[in-house]
Amino acid sequence: MRVQPKIEVCLSPALWHLYDSSDKIVVIIDIFRATSTIVAALFNGANSVIPTASVEECIQQGLSTPNSITAGERDGKVAEGLVHGNSPSEYPKEFIAGKTLVLTTTNGTKILHMVKPDAHAIIIGSFLNIDAVCDYIQSQKKDVILACAAWKDRVNIEDTLFAGGVIQKLKDDFNIYCDSGRMAATLYKDAKSQTSLIDFLKKSTHYKRLSQYGLEADMAYCAQENAHPIVPIYNNGELKPFNV
Amino acid sequence: MRVQPKIEVCLSPALWHLYDSSDKIVVIIDIFRATSTIVAALFNGANSVIPTASVEECIQQGLSTPNSITAGERDGKVAEGLVHGNSPSEYPKEFIAGKTLVLTTTNGTKILHMVKPDAHAIIIGSFLNIDAVCDYIQSQKKDVILACAAWKDRVNIEDTLFAGGVIQKLKDDFNIYCDSGRMAATLYKDAKSQTSLIDFLKKSTHYKRLSQYGLEADMAYCAQENAHPIVPIYNNGELKPFNV
Repeated sequence: MRVQPKIEVCLSPALWHLYDSSDKIVVIIDIFRATSTIVAALFNGANSVIPTASVEECIQQGLSTPNSITAGERDGKVAEGLVHGNSPSEYPKEFIAGKTLVLTTTNGTKILHMVKPDAHAIIIGSFLNIDAVCDYIQSQKKDVILACAAWKDRVNIEDTLFAGGVIQKLKDDFNIYCDSGRMAATLYKDAKSQTSLIDFLKKSTHYKRLSQYGLEADMAYCAQENAHPIVPIYNNGELKPFNV
Repeated sequence: MRVQPKIEVCLSPALWHLYDSSDKIVVIIDIFRATSTIVAALFNGANSVIPTASVEECIQQGLSTPNSITAGERDGKVAEGLVHGNSPSEYPKEFIAGKTLVLTTTNGTKILHMVKPDAHAIIIGSFLNIDAVCDYIQSQKKDVILACAAWKDRVNIEDTLFAGGVIQKLKDDFNIYCDSGRMAATLYKDAKSQTSLIDFLKKSTHYKRLSQYGLEADMAYCAQENAHPIVPIYNNGELKPFNV
């Protein structure tokens, strides 16, 4: 019998120590909104995206990076000292093509920086590129960890839902020996059977939180499946589209 | 508008630091099999159950407790130095009535001992007493945390499923402002819509693990809803039925 590679799901950075990422593909997931914004910016021609942990680091990196845009929010507003926010719709082609986006986020950057360098690859997942992510995974024949950024370590619906979508698409070719993965797949199946993704996502606590800042259109943007079919991959501190 | 008490779900002891249990009811959940065994033993007339963290502590506690049984397993076998195992079916009335069960488990005891004494109450949940647990919660008008024991900190299906069952039963009277709780409720709804609980639980990794030790009948026992309608409550290191 052919041994299938396996897919696991890590629901929160606080559980990351339970996983061994060596020689595995790690998919970073922060649907609202870091990974959606990264995918949008790179699809629209950004030269690269440099994720940074703090506002201060973002400013410093911006100063040393030619033709760069510093961006990031805290509590739904552009952080002091930065120029742009964390909305995927802020980065259309006319604006971002050829520039480097230096982006600070809290949850998404945290899990990204926790992955050890012995991973086979670190890539970025969002609904905007879900099929491209699955195609990439299929092409590599490696074990996979779907790493949810969560919200301040709390498990969230939107990241888990995406993980479940990947598993639903790949379950015939991969071994899902992971309860979190099975639960995520059930969630995705339930969401797809009853409503649109965005209507399902309205149940999430983070949707409600971001709605208070008037970010509903942003979240609808993040719920569009396959609008931006590229795979951002992380190397030497930068994200660039795979194979481009 | 009446403010409803809220229910949250903690999916793993590794996430417990994110929750504040002060003045809340904490429901300890370790379906396979610690909390199921505790409920069975107390329903069948055990004087009390004393949970201990280690085999050594279990032995010492047994020596100082009159008319006690020491019990616990490691890797599916009775641990060296103890007399009984961790199967609910090992504790029928004829055997356990009037005795004290000193029980060592790994996952269930860990989360139980993590709860601070400022909780309103610590109770034990299993499918065997799910409606009794819900009735108790309804009677107290307090916020609730459903605390899954998980498996070596990994989120598991069986404990999450039970949390989802409690939420499905209480969602009209409680505020479920918690993504983990909404995901758990979706899981329970999906399980109930398609099959018996035990057939659904066969998907869990822990079911497969315990099956290797021939414990299928044990797990079927644990999946019987409301076979033992009592509520074990924790006070001064001991579990006894509430109000008895």
